[in-house]
Parts: sequence; C-alpha cells; structure tokens
Amino acid sequence: MKSNNRDGLLIVISGPSGAGKGTVCKAYLKDNRDTILSISATTRNPRGSEKEGVSYFFKDRPTFEAMIKNGEFLEYAKVYDNYYGTPKEYVFRHLKKGLDVILEIDIQGALQVKKRFPEGVFIFIMPPSMEELKRRIVSRGTDTPDAIIKRFKSAYDEINYIDQYNYVVINDTIDNAKSTIESIITAEKSRVDRNKHICNDIQGGNTYD
Amino acid sequence: MKSNNRDGLLIVISGPSGAGKGTVCKAYLKDNRDTILSISATTRNPRGSEKEGVSYFFKDRPTFEAMIKNGEFLEYAKVYDNYYGTPKEYVFRHLKKGLDVILEIDIQGALQVKKRFPEGVFIFIMPPSMEELKRRIVSRGTDTPDAIIKRFKSAYDEINYIDQYNYVVINDTIDNAKSTIESIITAEKSRVDRNKHICNDIQGGNTYD
Repeated sequence: MKSNNRDGLLIVISGPSGAGKGTVCKAYLKDNRDTILSISATTRNPRGSEKEGVSYFFKDRPTFEAMIKNGEFLEYAKVYDNYYGTPKEYVFRHLKKGLDVILEIDIQGALQVKKRFPEGVFIFIMPPSMEELKRRIVSRGTDTPDAIIKRFKSAYDEINYIDQYNYVVINDTIDNAKSTIESIITAEKSRVDRNKHICNDIQGGNTYD
Repeated sequence: MKSNNRDGLLIVISGPSGAGKGTVCKAYLKDNRDTILSISATTRNPRGSEKEGVSYFFKDRPTFEAMIKNGEFLEYAKVYDNYYGTPKEYVFRHLKKGLDVILEIDIQGALQVKKRFPEGVFIFIMPPSMEELKRRIVSRGTDTPDAIIKRFKSAYDEINYIDQYNYVVINDTIDNAKSTIESIITAEKSRVDRNKHICNDIQGGNTYD
C-alpha cells in the first residue's frame, strides 16, 4: 500500500517592496503545477476585466466585517478605505487536497499568518543589495521621488523583521531564487516533524517508492 | 563587498543498517565537491592498503583513551576490542574552511553527535519498505541466516529513533535520495537562524550576488 497522501504546505512569500516577490512567485508557479496562488478577498470594486473568484473574491463591507468577526481570515488589512484579506476557507480547502498554496504578502500580513498558522513555511525574499533595491524601486517609474524615498526607507526597516521568518532567499536572479525555494519546499516535506506517520507506516508494512 | 564567507555544515547521515547510507553518501560526495567525508580514528590495526589519515587515523589505545578523556571526540564507541571515534579537530577544521563535512554513522553515534553539536543537520535514511530492507540485507550475502534476522530486527527497532533527526529521506533510488539531500542542504543554508548576518550586511551596504 502506498501511503504518502498528505496536506500541502502553506508557503508564505514575503519581503520588502522591490525585492521581487511577485516575479519570483510567478516563476515558481509556472514550474510547480501542484502549487496554487491564494486569492484575496476585498471590498474594493472590480476593475477592468477582473473576475470574481479569479482576481479576487469581491465582498461588500458588511460581509467582510462579518468574516473578520468570525475569524475567517488568515490575515487582513485596511488600505485607505478598502479591506483586503486572505480567506482561510480557500487556502485550507486546497491544502487538504494536497496542493501547496502560496501567499504573496507584505510583512504585516505575514506576521498575522504566522500567529494563526505557524506550520506554514515563511520565506523572506531579500534584494541582493540596498543599491539594487533602490534601482528596482526607481525603475518601476510609477512613483514620485518622495514616494521612492518613502518606499526605500520602509524597505530598509522591513528587513529588521527577517528573524520572524524561517528562510531568507536572496533574489539575485529569478532563476536562483526560484530553485532555492524549490529546495526549501522539498526539504520541508522531508522534515521528520511533517512525517510522523512514516515510522509506523514502514513498520506496518507500507512502502514508499 | 561580497560577504558570504561562512562555516560549512556538519551533515549527519544515519539510519538502520541496510538502508543504503554508504551508497547515498558516495553519490552525494561525487556531485558535491565542496563536501568531504569525515575520517574516523580507531585503535584497530591497518588492513591491506589502508593509509593513515586517509582510511583512518590509527591511534594506540592509551592515546585514544586520553582523547576520550579530553573530550576530543564528537562520538565514539567500542566495538568488540577496538575503539572507533570521530575526532572533533578534523571535522571543525574543515567546517571553518567553509567545507561541508559528512558523518556517515549508526544511530548510537548520531545521538552522541546531536548532544555535542546540535547545529548539525541530522538526516535519517529510510528504506522504502521493510520488505526491501530485508531484501538488501539478504542480498549482501555476507551474513548467516541468524545474523540476517538479528540485523533485520535491530533495523526495525532503530526506526523508532527517527524523531531524534531533522529529516527523513526515503532511499527508493540513489538518485532521488541524493537530490533530496542536496535540497535539504540548500534549504539549511537559507535558514534565517544560519544567516543572522545578512540583515546587518545588506543594510550596511554589502551585496549578495
């Protein structure tokens, strides 16, 4: 009897703005088809071609606030006038199916998830240098000089939260970062504390091949 | 300034007899040239072409016993009339150079190392099934039927020590086991608690690329 059915891993990809979280996640998802990206809920209105249950779960404010009250979020935040959050139900349903689920979130969000789901794998994406981080923030071309300075200063401070994470991955190239995350996930799936069943299984006559 | 000089990892490869520790280590060492195999000290006499400092460090009994007294071993054992042990000096000298060092040892040895050097990476090599383990023990052709039964029973009991280890690697094929160990070592080198320096380094203007 083969018996390696088990829950997927919750992979929290976080780090300062400009570290390249989004690009790294995209590269990882492309090569790891048993992994999905979590979908957030929000109270803001759909834009352009955004679709319910694909881009976001769109909720009205009373519904969102009721979900907060019922503890239905892994993390949530209010940004200006709108709520954003990660619904537990969507994440847990896919983990139960054995799929890994990626949350790509900022540091405040990651700290909330860690409190509610410490068995997740918390990965901090780090720019190769502050110089490079500045270059990346500037080269987006979407920020005013003031916003750039603010973003850079906040990235600098955010690096201090690194010890709340399990792993740090230097994003020097997308490919390196992606393959380091693949190694981390393979290693995590080999951790003894995630494989308590193996000892009994093997002694009970099950096979792993 | 590039600043990722750091100590290598002590990799403890252990598991029941017949799991294939030796073959897996050999495959790993072949593909990872920055990793060396630790050399044991022993009081037994050199055999055939065995060379001092290559096969073993050959010691007379008073010297070996003095080394025990001085705490110079990561682990040691008396097998019949001879001592065998892992000298700290050899291991630590190579770790300091940034090389990873593999100890391929039995479970009793691994438990001793864990007490003295808990920052090692403790990997338990597991056969894919007890059936396969039995087949491997029998197919060596070196044991009497009684010895085979004894070895099998002891392997069965040894599996209970798995929760003293960090990782379990199923040795279904040498290549799978080798590449899982490679992932584990990459992941361990990305652990935040092994990279305390990165945060200060990056903020201080160092680069990682």
